[in-house]
Amino acid sequence: MNKAFIFKMTENIENQVGELAQRARKASFTLATLSSDQKNTALESIAALIEKRADILSEKNNLDLEAGSQNGLSPALLDRLRLTPERIEGMVEGVRQVAALPDPVGQVIESSTRPNGLDIRKVSVPIGVIGIIYESRPNVTIDCAALCLKSGNASILRGGKEAFHSNSALAELVQEALRETDIPQDAVLLIPTTDREALNHLLKQDENIHCIIPRGGEALIRFVTEHSRIPVIKHYKGVCNLYIDSKADLDLARKIAVTAKCGRPGVCNAIENLIVHREIASEFLPETVNALTDANCEVRADSEARSILKDARPSLTVGEATEEDFHTEFLDLILAIKIVDSLEDAIDAVNLYGSGHSDAIVTTDKPAAERFLTAIDTSTVYWNASTRFTDGFEFGLGSEIGISTDRLHARGPMGLRELCTYKYQVRGNGQTK
Amino acid sequence: MNKAFIFKMTENIENQVGELAQRARKASFTLATLSSDQKNTALESIAALIEKRADILSEKNNLDLEAGSQNGLSPALLDRLRLTPERIEGMVEGVRQVAALPDPVGQVIESSTRPNGLDIRKVSVPIGVIGIIYESRPNVTIDCAALCLKSGNASILRGGKEAFHSNSALAELVQEALRETDIPQDAVLLIPTTDREALNHLLKQDENIHCIIPRGGEALIRFVTEHSRIPVIKHYKGVCNLYIDSKADLDLARKIAVTAKCGRPGVCNAIENLIVHREIASEFLPETVNALTDANCEVRADSEARSILKDARPSLTVGEATEEDFHTEFLDLILAIKIVDSLEDAIDAVNLYGSGHSDAIVTTDKPAAERFLTAIDTSTVYWNASTRFTDGFEFGLGSEIGISTDRLHARGPMGLRELCTYKYQVRGNGQTK
Repeated sequence: MNKAFIFKMTENIENQVGELAQRARKASFTLATLSSDQKNTALESIAALIEKRADILSEKNNLDLEAGSQNGLSPALLDRLRLTPERIEGMVEGVRQVAALPDPVGQVIESSTRPNGLDIRKVSVPIGVIGIIYESRPNVTIDCAALCLKSGNASILRGGKEAFHSNSALAELVQEALRETDIPQDAVLLIPTTDREALNHLLKQDENIHCIIPRGGEALIRFVTEHSRIPVIKHYKGVCNLYIDSKADLDLARKIAVTAKCGRPGVCNAIENLIVHREIASEFLPETVNALTDANCEVRADSEARSILKDARPSLTVGEATEEDFHTEFLDLILAIKIVDSLEDAIDAVNLYGSGHSDAIVTTDKPAAERFLTAIDTSTVYWNASTRFTDGFEFGLGSEIGISTDRLHARGPMGLRELCTYKYQVRGNGQTK
Repeated sequence: MNKAFIFKMTENIENQVGELAQRARKASFTLATLSSDQKNTALESIAALIEKRADILSEKNNLDLEAGSQNGLSPALLDRLRLTPERIEGMVEGVRQVAALPDPVGQVIESSTRPNGLDIRKVSVPIGVIGIIYESRPNVTIDCAALCLKSGNASILRGGKEAFHSNSALAELVQEALRETDIPQDAVLLIPTTDREALNHLLKQDENIHCIIPRGGEALIRFVTEHSRIPVIKHYKGVCNLYIDSKADLDLARKIAVTAKCGRPGVCNAIENLIVHREIASEFLPETVNALTDANCEVRADSEARSILKDARPSLTVGEATEEDFHTEFLDLILAIKIVDSLEDAIDAVNLYGSGHSDAIVTTDKPAAERFLTAIDTSTVYWNASTRFTDGFEFGLGSEIGISTDRLHARGPMGLRELCTYKYQVRGNGQTK
């Protein structure tokens, strides 16, 4: 391993993390002034070097897989860790796609000339230094490094301990690729330890790190939020709701309910709650729950829905939904069903249970739809479409670094543009005040 | 005092602060769906009631002033506390100005139709609940309440203990005005205690409060940032730099230097450092420092500048600038002067010493100016104009809730629009995935 890259973390972790943050900050000044060509050339070098070193990456990845097996990691976790040839090729392809995207830096977002003649332009610029805290997938190392580089940000990466050898090999490879370019090697730095103490110190470097993006489970994200002095952009969870209004096209409603739950239940934009207007519950629920059950989905319902289902389809197994169920991101083939009296009750339920990710209404009643679109407090609200479309690619962002359920800076799918901030450039001719 | 408004803070402060945050959150759902007319009517009611109750406000303010005198507050602090008839009229006028501004909510920021037919619109919406933590000026209570109301946000206000009676009277008055309107009284809540413990609990209410804006001295802002689990938008300090390039119009440079320092030295957009290119230092400095001294400004300079000044104008008193001086926001008639060898050294100095507030270059060399405009990492960068223009009114924002030296969400002057976030509204016709 490259000596410049690794350093001794045995003593004085705080100083060493601080030094790492300073190096990234220093690199960020250069990064902010690079041309698109310079950044794209570097991305192409990274892609080419990953292709060239695929064998070494596999070797290093095997070290993690062996350690993981010995430590009893689950097959699912081992699968996430694994860098197959296809996945390595996927990383290469991903880097090239990022290179092909438009440069988000230097766009004039707004401009005006003031009465005193000042020419004020609001221009997109990189945020500066971004810390990415993630868990077991080694490909996040490359995805995030590429997105940060393209948006002119320095990145400090802190991956999971299970993937340490893989991540180190990938970061070293990025630095090797950067050595041939105009871009400082410190543009992409990996924290060379998975010690929790190093993470704690990292989260206090608010002088030199400007934004933390945690990617992983809710526990990691909560830890980061509670310990960070640096602004965090996050999504805790996706408790997405689908509301079927009294004036819904019920065939459409059923199709959306089944696909939004069962298409890919383990993702954050799948629905967890189905809210149904009382007037159409008896007509809608039996066939819908039957379809869900046929797709191996477990259904938990409130007492009224259970009673309707018991009368209509005694053969169906329907559990009891607790209040806690409605707040839960199952990430599994489980759906909670609630009956409401009115559109307003549905809005209250969605705003209460939802996690501010994605929520939808199915209705043919335009005023009801518009009321829902206005009143629901969420990153993305749908009318007659599935919540599954909340995704950077579907939104045309080209690529995605995450989905924010926060309100400040970025909400919903985050692409390259959301990795930028702005500054005002003011051109005058001698104005004083 | 209105009983609904005050509650006993003697026991279980955590629960009571939590309840307050929940009430604000509940109010925020209604606020987000109000029309501009509804909000403007409420603002006019508030303005009218402040006018009507000016006498009572003065009485309550006198309680604070008397307590302040007894507690030995400085004359400057007592002046900040004082609600003169003119200041009360100023608050009224301020509320009416906010009412007259365009509604920032419901603007379609972007829209697109995807290949699958989904109509995606990015629409401006209120952030939700905003906590304002401020110090001694009671007028902040009304300014912030009005800006939050206009932008559809609920606000939780926590003023300084010196202004407690004044702030309570103002908050009670706002609630009285709201009682006659469609707006829930909980739209504007004042923390009815200045206990530090209550502030600590407030900063942990990240389920129900979405943004904290601290307004005050650096110590308050650092306390809030370190203890908050809620995102904070802040500005620590304004260490603004003015760089005089080798190709500057020296008369213009002198004029900007003197006005940007001496016009109003106690504000955050005044300059603290004057960076001078070596080539023009001997020509520029003597007359400039003479003019600064004439304006009662204390000058501290690096050794080279002192040597130039000593030779040219032995009668001038010039102190020695320490490294710490260059990092200091004097907020006073003190200026630190440094000589640099090149534009690049000037850029490094500005990026090192500046606090990311406002920085300027004076030059007739367009490429040098463009390099400076690109490379300086700050909220607002000027070419041939004073840093003093960094201000919401000067930028045409109509009003200002603060200036952000942060990078996320808002940077530079913050008006009504910066009190909004966005959400995506997606209209479909049955799309599933």
